[in-house]
Amino acid sequence: MIKVQFLPVNKTVEVPAGKSILEAARIAGIQIESTCGGRGTCGKCKVAKRSSNVEESTIEWVLACQYNLKEETVVFLEEKKEVSQRKTSLDQMKKIELEPSIKKYVLHIPKPSLENPVPDWERLEALLPDSKITFKRSLAVSLPRILRDNNHKVTVAMDSKVPIAVEPGDTSNRCFGLAIDIGTTTIVAHLINLINGQVIASQGMTNPQNIFGADVISRITHASQGHSQLEELQKRVIDGLNTLITELSEAYVVGLEEIYQAVVVGNTTMSHLFLGIDPTYLAPAPFTPVFQQEVEVEAWELGLAMLSTGIVIVLPNVAGYVGSDTVGVMISAEVDSLKGINLIIDIGTNGEIILAGKGKILTCSTAAGPAFEGAEIKFGMRASGGAIEEVRISDDVELEIIAGDQAQGICGSGLIDAVAEMVRVGVIDASGRFQHRADQLEKLPPLIASRVRSSNGQSEFVLVWAKDTVIGEDIVLTQKDIRELQLAKGAIAAGTKILLKEMGVKFTQLNKVMLAGAFGNFIKKESALRMGLLPPIPIEDIITIGNAASEGAKMVLLSTKEKIRAVKLAKKAEHIELSNQKGFQEEFIKSLSLGINF
Amino acid sequence: MIKVQFLPVNKTVEVPAGKSILEAARIAGIQIESTCGGRGTCGKCKVAKRSSNVEESTIEWVLACQYNLKEETVVFLEEKKEVSQRKTSLDQMKKIELEPSIKKYVLHIPKPSLENPVPDWERLEALLPDSKITFKRSLAVSLPRILRDNNHKVTVAMDSKVPIAVEPGDTSNRCFGLAIDIGTTTIVAHLINLINGQVIASQGMTNPQNIFGADVISRITHASQGHSQLEELQKRVIDGLNTLITELSEAYVVGLEEIYQAVVVGNTTMSHLFLGIDPTYLAPAPFTPVFQQEVEVEAWELGLAMLSTGIVIVLPNVAGYVGSDTVGVMISAEVDSLKGINLIIDIGTNGEIILAGKGKILTCSTAAGPAFEGAEIKFGMRASGGAIEEVRISDDVELEIIAGDQAQGICGSGLIDAVAEMVRVGVIDASGRFQHRADQLEKLPPLIASRVRSSNGQSEFVLVWAKDTVIGEDIVLTQKDIRELQLAKGAIAAGTKILLKEMGVKFTQLNKVMLAGAFGNFIKKESALRMGLLPPIPIEDIITIGNAASEGAKMVLLSTKEKIRAVKLAKKAEHIELSNQKGFQEEFIKSLSLGINF
Repeated sequence: MIKVQFLPVNKTVEVPAGKSILEAARIAGIQIESTCGGRGTCGKCKVAKRSSNVEESTIEWVLACQYNLKEETVVFLEEKKEVSQRKTSLDQMKKIELEPSIKKYVLHIPKPSLENPVPDWERLEALLPDSKITFKRSLAVSLPRILRDNNHKVTVAMDSKVPIAVEPGDTSNRCFGLAIDIGTTTIVAHLINLINGQVIASQGMTNPQNIFGADVISRITHASQGHSQLEELQKRVIDGLNTLITELSEAYVVGLEEIYQAVVVGNTTMSHLFLGIDPTYLAPAPFTPVFQQEVEVEAWELGLAMLSTGIVIVLPNVAGYVGSDTVGVMISAEVDSLKGINLIIDIGTNGEIILAGKGKILTCSTAAGPAFEGAEIKFGMRASGGAIEEVRISDDVELEIIAGDQAQGICGSGLIDAVAEMVRVGVIDASGRFQHRADQLEKLPPLIASRVRSSNGQSEFVLVWAKDTVIGEDIVLTQKDIRELQLAKGAIAAGTKILLKEMGVKFTQLNKVMLAGAFGNFIKKESALRMGLLPPIPIEDIITIGNAASEGAKMVLLSTKEKIRAVKLAKKAEHIELSNQKGFQEEFIKSLSLGINF
Repeated sequence: MIKVQFLPVNKTVEVPAGKSILEAARIAGIQIESTCGGRGTCGKCKVAKRSSNVEESTIEWVLACQYNLKEETVVFLEEKKEVSQRKTSLDQMKKIELEPSIKKYVLHIPKPSLENPVPDWERLEALLPDSKITFKRSLAVSLPRILRDNNHKVTVAMDSKVPIAVEPGDTSNRCFGLAIDIGTTTIVAHLINLINGQVIASQGMTNPQNIFGADVISRITHASQGHSQLEELQKRVIDGLNTLITELSEAYVVGLEEIYQAVVVGNTTMSHLFLGIDPTYLAPAPFTPVFQQEVEVEAWELGLAMLSTGIVIVLPNVAGYVGSDTVGVMISAEVDSLKGINLIIDIGTNGEIILAGKGKILTCSTAAGPAFEGAEIKFGMRASGGAIEEVRISDDVELEIIAGDQAQGICGSGLIDAVAEMVRVGVIDASGRFQHRADQLEKLPPLIASRVRSSNGQSEFVLVWAKDTVIGEDIVLTQKDIRELQLAKGAIAAGTKILLKEMGVKFTQLNKVMLAGAFGNFIKKESALRMGLLPPIPIEDIITIGNAASEGAKMVLLSTKEKIRAVKLAKKAEHIELSNQKGFQEEFIKSLSLGINF
């Protein structure tokens, strides 16, 4: 076994020789970003390491997934602001009544007598508040033994009217659940104590389906090849979740069989794949899902690491590209009780937009692409340690880097900032084109002009010179990167305009614009407004609501009323299929411009 | 491969060399009696065989389970009157309305459109009569493929509101179900066409749990040793049923996935074991079952060979020793609509008694023991080929043998006949004791006297001399055999008396006495009356109602109304626990006498 110390978190684990740093990190419960599934191709897992032997202590940069441990090693991690560790701006958890569907009953069951030889199951049933509960063969199997080994004192866990566990003695002080958010890029599990409603801890990782591609279409394409490919995708996400759940279970000493319910949100494709349901026909028009309603299955049927008879609730979808994650956002943002007209934008790998008002809820989905999550951008990365998150351009470029001095790449908020600034000073024009003619460069401050260059026939702007980076090469934004951002920006702005038009309102009538998701938390509103990503309303009316999809899942886990609400909201929501809207293409093209065009 | 021809049924099969005759018979779909599970100890599977090579054609008697086939062989079977082949006296099937809970719907599902991209599941649901059906993940998994491969034409099989299959095209002309009777000694499966209500065929075999003992107590004892023993017993009965079902499926070209429902009856212990539920506490007082209600589980959960999502219905029990088989009898005999007061006796391995009248249904169970099924009797056998079924004693013994001239053993009806006759002529007295003193023997006809002898210090009566038997040895009834019969007879008569007393009626008030079960079909009523097994009412009021337990299961399979009735009857039935009745021991001892003592 080899000792590996992770700094600055100062966590040490022992792993067998030959394990990669990535595997050691997973064992230590530490998340290192990786989007290629450990194949050494994405380069996102680069870390600094040195031997623990101080005499040989050269620091090397290696790919955590490719470096196999041979000796005691120290690994240096940038401190991260993980999605799951960020605080939400709206503290919804306080607003809801703690009324989970899971309830525990401690029962002293009378012994049978010759005069009244009532069956074990019926004597148990008689003590529960519901006079008629579902008979569960799997619980009846060992019931007589549990009763008699525990002097007829047991605890029954009920999920509404369905008994899901009969436990020896009094276990009423132990009751846990999971809120799960299956993103195309990231999967997150939150372990929650159902007795006090507290989130014990959250754990996330890259969605292990990513080896089949970063976007939903490539996952669907793979799944459509046959039943075994579909099963493979299902297995990947469930194995990934099981790793997260097991880590949480071990770290916080919660038995898997003490986890009685899971509430899952995800986009429609992710929900299909999680349930092993063929998503093939989500890809071509008319984008038909197999199901849209709320689905409940027992955990064993999916192989999810929790009480096997516990119920996994997948919240309802709205349409093929507006999933239960968006329903989670609706619950969390309480769209059914907001005043006036409100716009909510959740930017993940896709961008979903909700416009609520006039007694209606309109939704649409835009192919925003994963640009804001760092994919498709040359030096793009998620908002974790080493990411450029703010950019200001004056005489030279000034940066803010997450948790460090040296840059590793640029995240979505940094990208918007950078591009907004590049337009402002004239490095690019509003159409997104680089101003690289000599007469154009002359107008720029010299240090800025020196950053504009051409590489392989493509214009690019140097954000950070190699010496100031972790990776040892210049971090640049290319013309292609700008185009990717424009496409994403254009899609969201056009989608917003279509929804406003559909409801018959102007952006000036908006009460609030709410930004959900990891990206929403960190975006610099001024820059987003300046490039026309958001409608130009007063900046104080633009608020962030955190990881609202996950919050929605937690709320449903903690209150049956919220589940009823989720079903109602999903039914009430009207989906506007943008590809079916006559005006969409025109609005989209108009919105590509990097300026306000609402 | 070796050819084996079975005569007189004239069925030929080819099996690999080394297979036993018993295995070959099973492959041929022929049932040979065996109670030791093929271990060569019960001797019940003895058959005659010769080589097909006529020059070596000596006929040998061998144990079918022990003789391994080496060459082309001809096997001679006595023609059997199998339980499952016997006709029932009451033709209940005609009385019920054909209204199974399984219904098939052929649907032409509209294709989705951009204007209305309704999910596959919801477009299917919309065409069904119930507006809201249960969402079944397992059916949704492949739904999109089935729809699109079949031009959106499918057949949905529903079990009430639960969809259990989505099949390509129009399969509405194919719909099957199973009625299953799990007896302690014999298990029987009936394959039924749910479209016309016809029984296609029935197949039975010895309950493969018999290697753990012939009676329920020895099965419970084994199951109580641990979870793996319980699972072993469950596996044995399910494997046995699967053999029967697969044989029926192959012989009648019915796909296992075309079997949509199974209705199961059995005594309470058999029901527990079939469901894998610990029966331990059925053995000691107060004989507590784990469950008593009707149970429904999906077939895959039990591993039963049928549509995996199809539902297996186990009918409700009445008490620890009055099971769903008795409820089946109640349905079949229509105890809730009979006139006057009626007594029903179902004699299997246990004897269950029902007394219906005055708006009540009383039941009890007697430890009749398996004497009437041939167990515990030295030359006892089931009522199949070679069994002595009638005995008359005049100058000598006259016999009726089932399907043949040569005797192999004696079945329950023969036993009652023999003992009644032995009492009548004075071979034994009413207390059951052999009259073997010289002065007693002198009073008997000489040929009868010569049949009374002593062997190993025990008196016995030679029914058939060796030369007239299949087995080549004298078939006798021993003093112990007589005692076994007395215990069984005493238990049933005493149970009947207790029920009459409980209801406050006299036997003279009985409208009918109905005899159910294999035994009931063939009993000679005069003998049963003469020895006081049945209350002394006019012989024409004693009727046989066939294998009423199986009939009840069939009726439930064919009509949802009958299922509702089963649940009602099970609830209405009052169980009288004989061991808890002060007068029972006294009545039992009184009833041991081989004469009328009602």
